[in-house]
Amino acid sequence: MSEKTNEKLYGTMNSEWGEKFRLSVFGESHGAVIGVVVGGLPAGFEPDFAEVRRELARRAPGQGETSTPRRESDEFEVMSGLLDGRATGAPLMALCRNLDTRSRDYEPSLPRPGHADLAAAVKHGGFNDYRGGGHFSGRLTAPVVFAGALAKQLLSRRGVDISARITEIHGERDPDKFDGEILEAKGRGDSVGGVIECRARGVPVGWGEPMFRGVESELSAMLFSIPAVKGVEFGDGFELARRLGGEVSDGIGVDSNGNVVYLANHNGGINGGITNGEDIVFRVAIKPTPTIALPQSTVDLSQNKPVTHSFAGRHDSSVVPRAVPVVESAAAIALAQYL
Amino acid sequence: MSEKTNEKLYGTMNSEWGEKFRLSVFGESHGAVIGVVVGGLPAGFEPDFAEVRRELARRAPGQGETSTPRRESDEFEVMSGLLDGRATGAPLMALCRNLDTRSRDYEPSLPRPGHADLAAAVKHGGFNDYRGGGHFSGRLTAPVVFAGALAKQLLSRRGVDISARITEIHGERDPDKFDGEILEAKGRGDSVGGVIECRARGVPVGWGEPMFRGVESELSAMLFSIPAVKGVEFGDGFELARRLGGEVSDGIGVDSNGNVVYLANHNGGINGGITNGEDIVFRVAIKPTPTIALPQSTVDLSQNKPVTHSFAGRHDSSVVPRAVPVVESAAAIALAQYL
Amino acid sequence: MSEKTNEKLYGTMNSEWGEKFRLSVFGESHGAVIGVVVGGLPAGFEPDFAEVRRELARRAPGQGETSTPRRESDEFEVMSGLLDGRATGAPLMALCRNLDTRSRDYEPSLPRPGHADLAAAVKHGGFNDYRGGGHFSGRLTAPVVFAGALAKQLLSRRGVDISARITEIHGERDPDKFDGEILEAKGRGDSVGGVIECRARGVPVGWGEPMFRGVESELSAMLFSIPAVKGVEFGDGFELARRLGGEVSDGIGVDSNGNVVYLANHNGGINGGITNGEDIVFRVAIKPTPTIALPQSTVDLSQNKPVTHSFAGRHDSSVVPRAVPVVESAAAIALAQYL
Amino acid sequence: MSEKTNEKLYGTMNSEWGEKFRLSVFGESHGAVIGVVVGGLPAGFEPDFAEVRRELARRAPGQGETSTPRRESDEFEVMSGLLDGRATGAPLMALCRNLDTRSRDYEPSLPRPGHADLAAAVKHGGFNDYRGGGHFSGRLTAPVVFAGALAKQLLSRRGVDISARITEIHGERDPDKFDGEILEAKGRGDSVGGVIECRARGVPVGWGEPMFRGVESELSAMLFSIPAVKGVEFGDGFELARRLGGEVSDGIGVDSNGNVVYLANHNGGINGGITNGEDIVFRVAIKPTPTIALPQSTVDLSQNKPVTHSFAGRHDSSVVPRAVPVVESAAAIALAQYL
Repeated sequence: MSEKTNEKLYGTMNSEWGEKFRLSVFGESHGAVIGVVVGGLPAGFEPDFAEVRRELARRAPGQGETSTPRRESDEFEVMSGLLDGRATGAPLMALCRNLDTRSRDYEPSLPRPGHADLAAAVKHGGFNDYRGGGHFSGRLTAPVVFAGALAKQLLSRRGVDISARITEIHGERDPDKFDGEILEAKGRGDSVGGVIECRARGVPVGWGEPMFRGVESELSAMLFSIPAVKGVEFGDGFELARRLGGEVSDGIGVDSNGNVVYLANHNGGINGGITNGEDIVFRVAIKPTPTIALPQSTVDLSQNKPVTHSFAGRHDSSVVPRAVPVVESAAAIALAQYL
Repeated sequence: MSEKTNEKLYGTMNSEWGEKFRLSVFGESHGAVIGVVVGGLPAGFEPDFAEVRRELARRAPGQGETSTPRRESDEFEVMSGLLDGRATGAPLMALCRNLDTRSRDYEPSLPRPGHADLAAAVKHGGFNDYRGGGHFSGRLTAPVVFAGALAKQLLSRRGVDISARITEIHGERDPDKFDGEILEAKGRGDSVGGVIECRARGVPVGWGEPMFRGVESELSAMLFSIPAVKGVEFGDGFELARRLGGEVSDGIGVDSNGNVVYLANHNGGINGGITNGEDIVFRVAIKPTPTIALPQSTVDLSQNKPVTHSFAGRHDSSVVPRAVPVVESAAAIALAQYL
Repeated sequence: MSEKTNEKLYGTMNSEWGEKFRLSVFGESHGAVIGVVVGGLPAGFEPDFAEVRRELARRAPGQGETSTPRRESDEFEVMSGLLDGRATGAPLMALCRNLDTRSRDYEPSLPRPGHADLAAAVKHGGFNDYRGGGHFSGRLTAPVVFAGALAKQLLSRRGVDISARITEIHGERDPDKFDGEILEAKGRGDSVGGVIECRARGVPVGWGEPMFRGVESELSAMLFSIPAVKGVEFGDGFELARRLGGEVSDGIGVDSNGNVVYLANHNGGINGGITNGEDIVFRVAIKPTPTIALPQSTVDLSQNKPVTHSFAGRHDSSVVPRAVPVVESAAAIALAQYL
Repeated sequence: MSEKTNEKLYGTMNSEWGEKFRLSVFGESHGAVIGVVVGGLPAGFEPDFAEVRRELARRAPGQGETSTPRRESDEFEVMSGLLDGRATGAPLMALCRNLDTRSRDYEPSLPRPGHADLAAAVKHGGFNDYRGGGHFSGRLTAPVVFAGALAKQLLSRRGVDISARITEIHGERDPDKFDGEILEAKGRGDSVGGVIECRARGVPVGWGEPMFRGVESELSAMLFSIPAVKGVEFGDGFELARRLGGEVSDGIGVDSNGNVVYLANHNGGINGGITNGEDIVFRVAIKPTPTIALPQSTVDLSQNKPVTHSFAGRHDSSVVPRAVPVVESAAAIALAQYL
């Protein structure tokens, strides 16, 4: 093995999450498979896999004019951790084979602006799987949705319900105009981002372990792992910074049943890092898909020469619609830690 | 011990952080001490404690009309982990004794809107230290700044420099008008929030371990542990959601020395969770101090009766100015993981 | 989903290990697959898979009269994390399909003495995969050896070499008589245990992070995860407890090259939890295979009735020979944390 | 700060433990203080500090002829995390000031055989606190006993009782002769080790998370953090390696109340990493105190010259008696993770 002692070694990635409900995600956009090992599923839990498939279908591409035409298989096969349809307590591994890969679309020598291509090439010494972003690809959100669907089912059994919706596309807040914004950008070879709001109902008081393991910390860490998320805010978020304390006071009162209640929820259900029993409310900012048909400045690394290139691909003009179930899944995975 | 077997036990907190540069924060606002155990300081490191004191002074109260008149001791005494002024490699413990506590200002039966008082009372079965928020208090940011000052010095030795500044107070973006906004709110017995922008210069390419341990995830988790932070955004953040992909493309080029460079930094120095060599840029939203002189709705828990109460205290009309070094410290602690 | 809210949930398992070199093991003895996700492999690393197969072959059953006749597939297929034969930095997932399962050999209602059957049934509410021990099976040491083989190759590149050997079978210390002991036990329908000694050469000074993350702590935690290991000792181990301090002093001297050296190694290369540059030496005690042909007392849980049962199966009369590469692998995985 | 950029930095230590019941130990043998931050104490828990002091007294030196004459203060002061005598849920910090230090006893240039002195000097670049072993000192077991006493009280409330006793001193198994063995060694300027057996009664079925987080793994990791521990075995331990499977079968039966019970406990209450409801039983090997009055070979590092030196000090001729409460504490801390 002596000839290998000078083999130069480079950086790694870490696609594991969680202490109680745990994920280990693997796979690449254009490799053989994508998949996930889910740890921490309680024995006896009977997942509803039809529901899991519905969640995956919400994320899947090819859902109409606003989405990428790439046909992806989102059929996950469970290969361990189940017996007679119920979780055994052991790790559940599920994988999904990749179809319809077109790796020739990607030029290793032309890093895509707005992607990790260039930084990853440096970090990994050029040994990273550059094909379609490899392990960095948005395709890896499929196993996150698979695991998130299980987390949602576990939360649901405890009365916690999570749902997200688009509140803005390209600055437009009228839902009837969202598709229009996306199609207009598509028509120009461009792309648009947007804002997704997510709400968790039924969360009990007292989840979260401040100082550093508060609910906002756990949620935001998970949310920023979603590609294209560039901002996270809770409750009124950045708008709070523009208001007076008296205007955004979450007063406390007594309801007709004699229960102590909050009179408002500017804080998004979290105070000092712990849940207060109100709905958890947060929003994430999704940037426009960086891979667009319009020409962009990049560098041909093989010649160190600046070039202008159109990264055609088959990309979404906006990932925002498909990101909705991913945001819900991320939230569910983060909150499942507290069950 | 038999009489204790039915003792009812309640929730805990978790004030530990980090794998490489590690903190364990302890203490309460009106208890005997506040302090921190810092793990992971390399042996031989000679901290500049004059610089640590300067950082603490930036956070300290009583700095003028815009700040609380409470006199806090911010004199930390190092009690372990140093020999002849240099880190020994063993955990460094530093503590600071509390002075000038006025616990009578706080009524345990009157939870303060916008604080964790009510949720914490439920979570901890009423056994939490309610005096001034106890371990939830903003006073606990002092040990974070102490540790952050050490992290900044370690980063500085590697060429990484972190600095933050206020970019908005109560929606106002003109720095000359910031004090005016704060004083005007103070005059009305009210409070204001704001936005702090932080920049880390000199960060090398390739920090961060996607998917779930990306730099945005690590930074945001730490930033949301700061009381009053309700939003975090990287690069152009929420503004990205309102722009076209072509408008915010971080094009790639070649500079006059032949180095591959980015032509813009809309992504705040991070792509796919890893640093790209550009400045890391992020902003945090700070909410208005919830404890204000104006009357607020709360409940007298001893009688389950709604009341209107003025939580006078001696509070800042805006914590934004004092939060600036806290944000820098949080960023430094998060980034010190990568050294 | 309302009918599921009363679904009773039970305990979980945790088959993840490590912070730097990380494993997530999945699969069951008689399920579809066994496998592992290995995190932390540096990009550019070119594993020698022929060597990996050789290590797996050392652990495989059916190697002669002293081993179980079960034919297991130990062909692992790498499904992610590799490109052109080199690690990409992303998680490497490898799996192995199970063949030749004979689940009818196992009666869920008859817990095997010396196995986790009974405790697992309680912990997991009867939902655990009982077939051949499921995820508790010794078969799950195959993915550990797969990962360990990679760890050994990484360590080897840094000059660290790990090798183990049997030093005792059923109390016998003469290697020529080891097979005899095993065959004699087999002839009687019984089983024997033994002792394996492992040595890591070339370890540099200073690995280990006391107090609680010392090298002995890390190694022993990993070693006790091997089924059948019931004791771990470093250096002279339990024998040290029987000697005088003066007899087992690891004196310090200067060699002919002027280097400071140890004159003895009673401490097995570790002092105060950190490596001292001498060989790391430890021994593990392996208990006799609890599944034997001789009748044993158990309980028919379907009737709560004591019975005497012969758990024939196709088991090793001693797992000690096959445990040798498992011990090496466990050691390599634990030590790879320090690279 | 430019002159510091070439400051050479060395290794660290990690004195943190646990996920649920957590410790962060700090301090040095001859520094200002020793202490611990205990995280994870449930709010409402009322520690019995008289009991804590009794536990500390069992570990304290100066208890008769067999112990060191050093007078140590073992008075811990609780400085956070308590209100009106009950845990608040926030971290509990306790410290103890050091008295009666005699640092001149230790020569930094003469590393003590059998201690970490030499390895630590390399690892920490000579910046470690060498005085009496610094953070490596057995004195640091005092905060472990402090925390362990709290863990024992929490376990006791759940019916789990932990107690340890000496079973061997210098190979002698007759308790009446233990003091004789120690005094005889003392008379010769030598030292002796021994074996401590610990038993946890009342542990419920199902603690432990295999594969890698089994109870044996957790306990052994904690136990090997105790200075001088060089071996750990569960149940019959190494003796199992010398017996036939049929001889050490933990048969299963039905007791007179119709409960399924084990008919023996050769496995020490743990199968496959999880507790089976029987007593957890384990033994640890304690090596002879390496610091003895007899001359030992070492090297004067200031001249790189071999010398023979008598490390007089004021050391125990056997730490075994004082290690008994430390072993119990370590076990309690490890098991408190499962509450």
